Amino acid sequence: MQWPSKDVLYTVIFGTETPAGRRFDLALIVAILLSIVVLFLDSMSSARAHIGGTLYVLEWTFTLLFTLEYGVRVYCAHNRLAYIRSFYGIIDVLAVMPTYLSVFIPGLSFLLMVRLLRVLRIFRILKLFRYANEANVLLRSLNHSRRKIMVFFSSLFILVTLFGSLLYVVEGPENGFTSIPLSIYWAIVTITTVGFGDITPQTPLGQGIAAVTMLMGYAIIAVPTGILSAELGREMRREYDMRHCPLCDKTGHDKDASYCKYCGGEMEPKQDPEAAAAVAAEKD
Amino acid sequence: MQWPSKDVLYTVIFGTETPAGRRFDLALIVAILLSIVVLFLDSMSSARAHIGGTLYVLEWTFTLLFTLEYGVRVYCAHNRLAYIRSFYGIIDVLAVMPTYLSVFIPGLSFLLMVRLLRVLRIFRILKLFRYANEANVLLRSLNHSRRKIMVFFSSLFILVTLFGSLLYVVEGPENGFTSIPLSIYWAIVTITTVGFGDITPQTPLGQGIAAVTMLMGYAIIAVPTGILSAELGREMRREYDMRHCPLCDKTGHDKDASYCKYCGGEMEPKQDPEAAAAVAAEKD
Amino acid sequence: MQWPSKDVLYTVIFGTETPAGRRFDLALIVAILLSIVVLFLDSMSSARAHIGGTLYVLEWTFTLLFTLEYGVRVYCAHNRLAYIRSFYGIIDVLAVMPTYLSVFIPGLSFLLMVRLLRVLRIFRILKLFRYANEANVLLRSLNHSRRKIMVFFSSLFILVTLFGSLLYVVEGPENGFTSIPLSIYWAIVTITTVGFGDITPQTPLGQGIAAVTMLMGYAIIAVPTGILSAELGREMRREYDMRHCPLCDKTGHDKDASYCKYCGGEMEPKQDPEAAAAVAAEKD
Amino acid sequence: MQWPSKDVLYTVIFGTETPAGRRFDLALIVAILLSIVVLFLDSMSSARAHIGGTLYVLEWTFTLLFTLEYGVRVYCAHNRLAYIRSFYGIIDVLAVMPTYLSVFIPGLSFLLMVRLLRVLRIFRILKLFRYANEANVLLRSLNHSRRKIMVFFSSLFILVTLFGSLLYVVEGPENGFTSIPLSIYWAIVTITTVGFGDITPQTPLGQGIAAVTMLMGYAIIAVPTGILSAELGREMRREYDMRHCPLCDKTGHDKDASYCKYCGGEMEPKQDPEAAAAVAAEKD
Repeated sequence: MQWPSKDVLYTVIFGTETPAGRRFDLALIVAILLSIVVLFLDSMSSARAHIGGTLYVLEWTFTLLFTLEYGVRVYCAHNRLAYIRSFYGIIDVLAVMPTYLSVFIPGLSFLLMVRLLRVLRIFRILKLFRYANEANVLLRSLNHSRRKIMVFFSSLFILVTLFGSLLYVVEGPENGFTSIPLSIYWAIVTITTVGFGDITPQTPLGQGIAAVTMLMGYAIIAVPTGILSAELGREMRREYDMRHCPLCDKTGHDKDASYCKYCGGEMEPKQDPEAAAAVAAEKD
Repeated sequence: MQWPSKDVLYTVIFGTETPAGRRFDLALIVAILLSIVVLFLDSMSSARAHIGGTLYVLEWTFTLLFTLEYGVRVYCAHNRLAYIRSFYGIIDVLAVMPTYLSVFIPGLSFLLMVRLLRVLRIFRILKLFRYANEANVLLRSLNHSRRKIMVFFSSLFILVTLFGSLLYVVEGPENGFTSIPLSIYWAIVTITTVGFGDITPQTPLGQGIAAVTMLMGYAIIAVPTGILSAELGREMRREYDMRHCPLCDKTGHDKDASYCKYCGGEMEPKQDPEAAAAVAAEKD
Repeated sequence: MQWPSKDVLYTVIFGTETPAGRRFDLALIVAILLSIVVLFLDSMSSARAHIGGTLYVLEWTFTLLFTLEYGVRVYCAHNRLAYIRSFYGIIDVLAVMPTYLSVFIPGLSFLLMVRLLRVLRIFRILKLFRYANEANVLLRSLNHSRRKIMVFFSSLFILVTLFGSLLYVVEGPENGFTSIPLSIYWAIVTITTVGFGDITPQTPLGQGIAAVTMLMGYAIIAVPTGILSAELGREMRREYDMRHCPLCDKTGHDKDASYCKYCGGEMEPKQDPEAAAAVAAEKD
Repeated sequence: MQWPSKDVLYTVIFGTETPAGRRFDLALIVAILLSIVVLFLDSMSSARAHIGGTLYVLEWTFTLLFTLEYGVRVYCAHNRLAYIRSFYGIIDVLAVMPTYLSVFIPGLSFLLMVRLLRVLRIFRILKLFRYANEANVLLRSLNHSRRKIMVFFSSLFILVTLFGSLLYVVEGPENGFTSIPLSIYWAIVTITTVGFGDITPQTPLGQGIAAVTMLMGYAIIAVPTGILSAELGREMRREYDMRHCPLCDKTGHDKDASYCKYCGGEMEPKQDPEAAAAVAAEKD
């Protein structure tokens, strides 16, 4: 077997157009997912007790594989430094580093968590670019609403501090509200309607204030929802109004309209190759 | 009493137009609901202890009745193979099979659950076709929003993995976060604001991260709601599928369209009395 | 002091226009609220232990007062039979009956609950007619969406039966899922994101299915919200489109517009006295 | 060092335009946040046990600093009485008063909570005026929807009283529903989907009624959300308060209005560069 050239390697590893490239991507996704399953199993004491040795071997196998992959990526990248400094270049290093470090610095379990960043590597392969436009509409709506959302969150923080402190005073440490920060934590648990139930008011007054907290949390969720609904509606209408009829100049045409719905005039096709490509890419 | 002809049987069993057909449908709904009540009672140990024998007899009675009904359906169907292979034909078999199998393979409780599919048989009778249009508007909106919803769920999964793993590192097995998968389960319980409270953070840092998780879950529910509100609003404004182009027969035209957006053909104004009646019927 | 005439009594008791009528209404609201507080206190064992005698006396005082009020209402009503058969006439009787019945049939605590219907008597006095239009917009929107909401609830019931039964099979009685109805109850607790935590899955598989249940409940709440948002938006726009400019015939004018915003032409005032009254009543 | 003049002090303390003013503001925010951290720590028994003395000293340091600041503010204010009587003037006093009072009246922990109002002082510095417009849109939408929201809350209170009382009768004190007020508290916990789980129904009938309560709470949250979405959508489409009628100076005109809807006067087209800039600034 002949050693593949740098260009062939690049096409296989970085590209997705060739059958070999797609097979490589598929194998990589499987390897990443399996390595995450190994991580998950390694965190379960019963699994570690029974198949700890196997998990250890598997973890090193995946680490060496990913290290090899990283090496080949650096070797065949058109611009090595750019790749090393890129977002995914850093993720690729962080995904294998902890296993090597754990040899020298044992017991640093939080360090091993860094390996979970491997999950981000899947996104590179899945080419989430396809969904970029959808994410853009969402992000643009969030961005337009960001000041309304800030006003909402500021009000929420004041409410939570107020109700938490009130409950601390009313219920006190003997009913589980041992400090103001813990009481504010309780208020967040309650106003978001999570309601763990590990700390609950015991006095009638405390339960009354808690009831008000809940009703507020229940009602004010309507605020961010309303903001975003209205903003997304506007954003979508805007997308809808982007085409003009060349005859009657009216807007409001669907993206797939070929003729003006008002005067029957032929709509201009999206002839700009770049725009058409963008539209096509956006469509599928 | 004369034995009814195949055609009469078909009208009674498959049809809903004749009084006899309606009486049969009503009796069948009652029988299905009663057989489900028997299933429910059979799962309650106290009921089984007291009236276990009666439940056993009732279960076999319903099974034999449904088997008989299935036999008659096969006998009088216009196209027997088509019926047997149809969705409801398969459901009809699955609804009685487990009881027979339980004689040979005892103790397979999950097999008995298959009988719950009987509930789906009710839908055939209720002719949910009436609601098909409503379901279509909902499904079309969901379909249009599917990519935005995928972006939302992808973000949700990343958040849940991130916060779950963080809590596993911060709280650890001694506070109930015994493994990463369990911690991710906890993060889902928290971010969806369910909040069972069987596992709760005990350290101040863990509670702080949990508070962030809750606030996120509380706020980001606005995203799918906003998406669907905006999409449904657009879908309703359009109320499409109501008008067809007389030239190309395509649907999906706006209420104010005078020309087909696909072929430019003139759309008929809404003068057809039947269409108006249909619109009125649809409206109320 | 002279005994008041039947007409004067009617004005005071049924009317709200005279100062005496308003004073009577206020006194009645206070009496009703106090009698409900007595009911609440009577249900608390500690209060009953300390001031049980006082509560007993108060309850009889309010009962006799309300009986007297009922007698006077019957006496001075323009149409006695119509009053006795009216909604509030029946509520008035139900509000006092249980106390009398409790003398003969002791221990029927659920009977005493009927007295809580007294709270409905407040609504008569508050004349909630003022809010009737707002309630109408809400009810009309709910009515228009009722079929979409039925589709939503049917899907919810199927999901809840499915997931509840699944959990019953997976977790079983040893983990608290003692019967299918209880498991369906658990599924409702989970899918609505209430999450009491009295029953929770213990096996990894059960927790996985529970996570799916939660995510579904978290996401599908968007459906009824989206339906109602879109419907209310339409309902509001319709209210908005009810006025036409007599000059340019364009719609979309605010309720308080005096001039057309497009051509500056004077808008017709709402001259129809009935419509004007309705608008005025609606406005305040 | 020369003692600064009254005017210089005013610019530094009340103003935000000069570098000195900004440095002062930053120092004040840090001091306020630190004093709140001290308050939080002081409420934690473990922190009080270890560094109680330090916390005591810090609390007095911050109190004296804020007292000094208050004195200087009164000294250099243009209108002393106006400042003292203003909202922030009162907050400034309330933020230091409790510490002094605690010397004379020990053990009044709820009094010390008043110091948490210090958090409101931050808002003065952050000049939330920038967000005033966003808050206005939200408040205006809430104001327009207030009657629909009142109808919603009235219905919610009736539902909660009804279901709470029902559960009290069905479950009774032996299952934790010890009184009607507590049962109503439970109903609020359930209908808002908080679900602490400290009180849960144990009988099948109680669980059935609880399931209905949950489904209601889960579904009716759609009502306030729908109301606010529709109202915010309308408010945004309008984007009013941006244009004034040159004749009658009234605001509240739609974006497409050519004539004032109140006086019929011709509206100015949007050509004013400053207005355009303001609109652009508002948009981003």
